[in-house]
Amino acid sequence: MSIFGLIEYQDASPEVRAIYDDIMATRKTDWINNFWKAIAHDPATLKRTWQDIKQIMASGELDALTKEMVYLAVSVSNQCTYCIASHTAGARKQGMTDAMFKELMAVVGMANETNKMVTGYQVEIDEGFKSQQSVVSG
Amino acid sequence: MSIFGLIEYQDASPEVRAIYDDIMATRKTDWINNFWKAIAHDPATLKRTWQDIKQIMASGELDALTKEMVYLAVSVSNQCTYCIASHTAGARKQGMTDAMFKELMAVVGMANETNKMVTGYQVEIDEGFKSQQSVVSG
Amino acid sequence: MSIFGLIEYQDASPEVRAIYDDIMATRKTDWINNFWKAIAHDPATLKRTWQDIKQIMASGELDALTKEMVYLAVSVSNQCTYCIASHTAGARKQGMTDAMFKELMAVVGMANETNKMVTGYQVEIDEGFKSQQSVVSG
Amino acid sequence: MSIFGLIEYQDASPEVRAIYDDIMATRKTDWINNFWKAIAHDPATLKRTWQDIKQIMASGELDALTKEMVYLAVSVSNQCTYCIASHTAGARKQGMTDAMFKELMAVVGMANETNKMVTGYQVEIDEGFKSQQSVVSG
Amino acid sequence: MSIFGLIEYQDASPEVRAIYDDIMATRKTDWINNFWKAIAHDPATLKRTWQDIKQIMASGELDALTKEMVYLAVSVSNQCTYCIASHTAGARKQGMTDAMFKELMAVVGMANETNKMVTGYQVEIDEGFKSQQSVVSG
Amino acid sequence: MSIFGLIEYQDASPEVRAIYDDIMATRKTDWINNFWKAIAHDPATLKRTWQDIKQIMASGELDALTKEMVYLAVSVSNQCTYCIASHTAGARKQGMTDAMFKELMAVVGMANETNKMVTGYQVEIDEGFKSQQSVVSG
Repeated sequence: MSIFGLIEYQDASPEVRAIYDDIMATRKTDWINNFWKAIAHDPATLKRTWQDIKQIMASGELDALTKEMVYLAVSVSNQCTYCIASHTAGARKQGMTDAMFKELMAVVGMANETNKMVTGYQVEIDEGFKSQQSVVSG
Repeated sequence: MSIFGLIEYQDASPEVRAIYDDIMATRKTDWINNFWKAIAHDPATLKRTWQDIKQIMASGELDALTKEMVYLAVSVSNQCTYCIASHTAGARKQGMTDAMFKELMAVVGMANETNKMVTGYQVEIDEGFKSQQSVVSG
Repeated sequence: MSIFGLIEYQDASPEVRAIYDDIMATRKTDWINNFWKAIAHDPATLKRTWQDIKQIMASGELDALTKEMVYLAVSVSNQCTYCIASHTAGARKQGMTDAMFKELMAVVGMANETNKMVTGYQVEIDEGFKSQQSVVSG
Repeated sequence: MSIFGLIEYQDASPEVRAIYDDIMATRKTDWINNFWKAIAHDPATLKRTWQDIKQIMASGELDALTKEMVYLAVSVSNQCTYCIASHTAGARKQGMTDAMFKELMAVVGMANETNKMVTGYQVEIDEGFKSQQSVVSG
Repeated sequence: MSIFGLIEYQDASPEVRAIYDDIMATRKTDWINNFWKAIAHDPATLKRTWQDIKQIMASGELDALTKEMVYLAVSVSNQCTYCIASHTAGARKQGMTDAMFKELMAVVGMANETNKMVTGYQVEIDEGFKSQQSVVSG
Repeated sequence: MSIFGLIEYQDASPEVRAIYDDIMATRKTDWINNFWKAIAHDPATLKRTWQDIKQIMASGELDALTKEMVYLAVSVSNQCTYCIASHTAGARKQGMTDAMFKELMAVVGMANETNKMVTGYQVEIDEGFKSQQSVVSG
């Protein structure tokens, strides 16, 4: 069980309830998942975290589906089981199909494999990658 | 310098050269980056890794740009500097703009933040996430 | 269940029992947690690990509470669920309040977020940080 | 070099400059470190990250020194070299002595060691830790 | 439960069944563990992953026992509980004794401890290590 | 440069010198690598760490070569560049050939790949692995 338990909507302070309301309105759902109920014991953190997530995960240059899949990829790479469950659900809600999930897992696995091989072989960064960077920053 | 040094095209065996040729043809480039030249000292690993990458990173249900950005996101999360340089370049080649990079970094940072908070607060997985999973696997 | 099971006090060899006694005396408790009972199957490791912990976690320039909170912060960052449970308990025993736990989690989350953004943006170390270091080491 | 280069104060937009000013005023310094100059290319991220850091790192139930040392501990555990340099400097500014740094590193090392041993031995969470948690959440 | 459920032998397509048969023949067992049944929903990934594992884990310059213990060491360091369970079993099948397991865990713990201390103290690589490398690559 | 600089033999206290002597005698070398010189600023940590390493890395049920390769595998997986350089050298000194290094890297890469896929697919531990464990602990 989460360290301080979960704060349900009916037990929440007006401050917390307002954030729950915004989460549900933004996500077009009538449901709050446990993460928010767990950190609601610290309203400042609840508010800050939700505002950040709301800003960052909104469709922009990257669409919401891509963002959810990236979030899921990082969660898998970090082996955070809760996050994998919640962001698998989140990505599906945005349109991730089973076939997309499978390709995503293949990429995450491959990236983890080569990340380690590169480091183990002590590969130095190509000049071509460096010069490309300075062009970009010009 | 990489542990065994780098095998340049002109010094490569026919077996290694064939893979270099396939990398350049697939990627529509005349250039091989250091990772491949470093692991070319182990031709079996070079061949297996390239075949895997070629299969996994090809456009499929996810397009090549999304895959490169996911690869980059994992590399950032793993703090692999070589991989960040090479997959930033790779993603750009597939069309990642500066604005997309910025949003990608914001998502990666956020995911890492909440991955840890979830675990620290010992949040249990919602029943809603579990039931959704069994529906999917049905 | 732990791989070799848990060695309870009454079943322990005199060598293991002596360490259990020292753990309980040092911690002013009559209770041994599972980690020690699990590694007691390897008495050399039990002894070495306990001696290290005893030396490192004693109040010194940092007080015992700060040390427990740092231990907890690392455990959260590593997503070690057992360690989070045990060091949350340990930190509380040293005086960590709920409010302190909440701030601790916020710092851990934030550190994980910016650790990745720094690396993703490939930020080079400031000269000011380098020169400060050489002053210190002078 | 950072991917987009660094935005110096004199080249910054009024929006970015206002944040630089707040960073310098809050930290009582006339100096901005590279991390901020690197992410300033994304003003929304600069603003959000600074506001979060400002809120989280201010003295509260935990003093600013403890927070900086926790930040450093996480950065070491994540092996983020930039972050280690910047938060070693930050912790020193808050009063971390060399002796405190040494104890901090010992705790971080030890935590990483036992985090892995616990998991490798597959140690199950003690009932005592679980019941303590539910008391807390009651 | 795994995201898509597990595909049992009797329910498998001929393509998947052929891989299951090869796994059982190679491992001299009549049993398929859950990992394969879970990824069998993506036959291309099942096939690629099995072929890679088969090639990499076969006895070569390193014997199969050493390889299984290295796999276990990495899994422990990554805190992947499934992988720890499966590769503890795999290493035992190759001859890992309880005494070997204990020494392995001690090494993994120690490596994680010093990996972080090295980084925290910002230790630069010895010239002696660098020159040795260039000799090797000559 | 390391945070406090490096303590050379001629500048070391008798306490530190005694440990340097033991390191060189144990390793049959006349050379101390930077890690020890960096942590020598904290003699208690130097002594404890060396004693632990000496005990853990000695040939036992696992030979010294296997232990060095496991140490290297963990260091690669953690992406600790100093540790990779030092333990590649250490493993070579114990007899690791280039061919062994290559196979080791392949195993480390593969383990990192499947560690993540297992977690991403949310694979549950096989009953067969669980029952095997309880037999062992009986």
